[in-house]
Amino acid sequence: MPREVDVAIIGAGSAGLFALSQVRRKTDNYVLIDGGELGTTCARVGCMPSKVLIQVADDFYRRNIFEREGIEGAESINVDIPEAMGHVQDLRDTFVDRTLGATDNLDDTHLLQAYARFVSDDTLEVDGEMIRAKKIIIATGSSPVIPAAWQPCAEHILTTDEIFELEDLPTSMAVVGMGSIGLEIGQALSRLGVEVTGIDQLTTVAKLADPVVNDLAIDAIGKEFPLWLGATAELEKQDAGVKVSCGDQSILVEKVLASLGRRPNLARLGLENTSVKLDAQGIPVYDPLTMQIGDSAIFIAGDVNADRALLHEAGHEGRVAGYNAVHESIAAFKRKTFLGITFCDPNIATVGAQLDELDEADIAIGEIQFAPVGRALIMGKNRGVLRLYANKADGKLLGAAMACVKAENLAHLLAWSIQQGLSVQDLLKMPFYHPVIEEALQAALYNALGKLDIKEEVVELEKL
Amino acid sequence: MPREVDVAIIGAGSAGLFALSQVRRKTDNYVLIDGGELGTTCARVGCMPSKVLIQVADDFYRRNIFEREGIEGAESINVDIPEAMGHVQDLRDTFVDRTLGATDNLDDTHLLQAYARFVSDDTLEVDGEMIRAKKIIIATGSSPVIPAAWQPCAEHILTTDEIFELEDLPTSMAVVGMGSIGLEIGQALSRLGVEVTGIDQLTTVAKLADPVVNDLAIDAIGKEFPLWLGATAELEKQDAGVKVSCGDQSILVEKVLASLGRRPNLARLGLENTSVKLDAQGIPVYDPLTMQIGDSAIFIAGDVNADRALLHEAGHEGRVAGYNAVHESIAAFKRKTFLGITFCDPNIATVGAQLDELDEADIAIGEIQFAPVGRALIMGKNRGVLRLYANKADGKLLGAAMACVKAENLAHLLAWSIQQGLSVQDLLKMPFYHPVIEEALQAALYNALGKLDIKEEVVELEKL
Repeated sequence: MPREVDVAIIGAGSAGLFALSQVRRKTDNYVLIDGGELGTTCARVGCMPSKVLIQVADDFYRRNIFEREGIEGAESINVDIPEAMGHVQDLRDTFVDRTLGATDNLDDTHLLQAYARFVSDDTLEVDGEMIRAKKIIIATGSSPVIPAAWQPCAEHILTTDEIFELEDLPTSMAVVGMGSIGLEIGQALSRLGVEVTGIDQLTTVAKLADPVVNDLAIDAIGKEFPLWLGATAELEKQDAGVKVSCGDQSILVEKVLASLGRRPNLARLGLENTSVKLDAQGIPVYDPLTMQIGDSAIFIAGDVNADRALLHEAGHEGRVAGYNAVHESIAAFKRKTFLGITFCDPNIATVGAQLDELDEADIAIGEIQFAPVGRALIMGKNRGVLRLYANKADGKLLGAAMACVKAENLAHLLAWSIQQGLSVQDLLKMPFYHPVIEEALQAALYNALGKLDIKEEVVELEKL
Repeated sequence: MPREVDVAIIGAGSAGLFALSQVRRKTDNYVLIDGGELGTTCARVGCMPSKVLIQVADDFYRRNIFEREGIEGAESINVDIPEAMGHVQDLRDTFVDRTLGATDNLDDTHLLQAYARFVSDDTLEVDGEMIRAKKIIIATGSSPVIPAAWQPCAEHILTTDEIFELEDLPTSMAVVGMGSIGLEIGQALSRLGVEVTGIDQLTTVAKLADPVVNDLAIDAIGKEFPLWLGATAELEKQDAGVKVSCGDQSILVEKVLASLGRRPNLARLGLENTSVKLDAQGIPVYDPLTMQIGDSAIFIAGDVNADRALLHEAGHEGRVAGYNAVHESIAAFKRKTFLGITFCDPNIATVGAQLDELDEADIAIGEIQFAPVGRALIMGKNRGVLRLYANKADGKLLGAAMACVKAENLAHLLAWSIQQGLSVQDLLKMPFYHPVIEEALQAALYNALGKLDIKEEVVELEKL
């Protein structure tokens, strides 16, 4: 007889833990199953250690502003890489410990540390035990992609699974994949003294669909380390490392960071034993508003569904999956306005709808170049651009893309505004303090205002 | 015969220039009158040069984090004060030049560089010329207060009018007045090596009405330089400087910075020749929604009305005064949600209603201490607190106070949300990225949620 549970959650990462928080409100008869190392991707090998590395690199890089500010001694500053990596690992361990708090108090009936495999739509095999669940949530996360053709160079290839574990850094590195992870780590390593070459087969970075923002990001970051864009990287093992070629350029490097994306962890699940339908990419077909797979009793949340691989979206999806797993009728929930941030310098952020999703004939693009922004000039970070997209007919904000200082903060203001359906005119009535980077957003709003079909007499004021 | 104009604006600072922008839309028959140095208070002696000084000081102070991050050489870093002050002055000049752009293109009929004096409600005397105006806008700004009793020590007293002009800094300084200006400049000077003592007759800093935030701010900043609070500063001239006493403490300092507040520039205006009524503090009685003084044809905007001495409020008030000066009927305009920021470290910010304006029985206070905030820990800035005030019955946000990293950014999110009438529950549905400081706000919202009278099942999700 299989063990009977109300809900089985496969994966104790961020999405699984958020699902669990909902499930526990309704039932104690659940099981959380995880065959890998406990602690979330975010804390172990993702958001958190990368931010520590970036913080150290940015603090070290800041010495370049010292001369203009009258601060002496920049040339005496060095970074002790093993010390810096030790600091990254110390903080990483702190963050991992915190996420483990979520599973520490689960007993052996509730937490199974083994891999789960579907034997049918409602039954899992876990370490020889059969578990029949009324509802099952797949939240197995994702893993870094390494192309099969790179196998001969395996010993020189790192991913985010390994890089934060290093005690020392290589002297040279090709970072292949200029998405968020590649840009963040590539720039941080470059600032810490590694000879970095950034490579991507696309001519865009951080998935930017806006050519103006993309060009500025490439130009600004390309001044720190070479970016080879528009051709596939090819690796060739050498005695002293790896020869990495991209188009007609090549370089010999000690290590290669594969930052080509992450692949959903679906292979071990035995989905072939279920009625779950897969799309062309092999991802279960699910409803992003309910997280339900088809009309099954199986839900999917987090990186494993290959949609929005972001912690706060994993949180949202986990909550929705967990909620629906313990309620009689399946409810659809509004998605959050898209918000994506790359923590490089300048920050890159995208919010809401992007240019490739919009018809340029229908929108007004408000643009601000940061050179004249007072606070940015004071910070010595006045290379940047912010572009926002508004409905030309009524000024309603649709989306934004930016590469600029404090984009991480501006992007929140914009995402919250877009989620509420606000317009350019609405935002211009808000307080913008002085001198703050938010004034750049204000300038972009004015720029958009001039391009709208509507005209108001005094847009900043609201009559009582 | 007096010269006849539609509008006379007295004062070419921020408020006057924003008023001008409205006036010019309707008439070319205006005059802008300024007897002082052109260029706004903000750019010449306020927001802008202080932010440059703070930026240099903060960049220099950041060396204290180096050791924990594995960065070596902090002890070799010094600041060349004359170089640093030269940098402050260079950028200050850049910002002043920009504000001068607003008056550069005005000819001698439109811009009068002299002081204006009312001879009646509708007539001004300017450098011997009589100007009769249909509408008059007073926007003469404010000046630093120096107590009369300090006169014997005058040669040792500085205000913001002088401090940014210094070629070198004194070795010791008492900063009297721990409002925004005193805190910002006091901390910056301390970080640049000046032996600073901060003094205030109040036991609060930055006008904080929230005791929890006030205590943390005092404790954090008081670790950098002594704060003597709760007694009036008394000055006594000595051969080598000034002896500054406060309660039973005293210190000999080279200079004193008077940061006791700013007094409206009303004395020269000859208001006694008008029907304008003054309040107990000698400020014209006006309507903050229209900026009209009584039912006269005179308006008042900016620092001179002694209400919200902030650039963005001067902009708002200037616009309202300018609008009403050129429209037949007087319109009332909604005020912006209050937003005040002190750019010290940790930032101090207040938004909306403060504790002394609220009935604690009716509100839920959401509080987050920053120690556990991941990103703050990474930044090494995890000493902070954010408190937000919500209506206990329905969760509507009313105000907030905070002393924490990036308060300047969090305060914008909160001010925009309060201005829109949003609730704790509304905000918890917004995207909060990870790991960002905005997550501290999210935690404070959760804390408030638990104290509300209402309970929702899954507050983060919105059913479709």
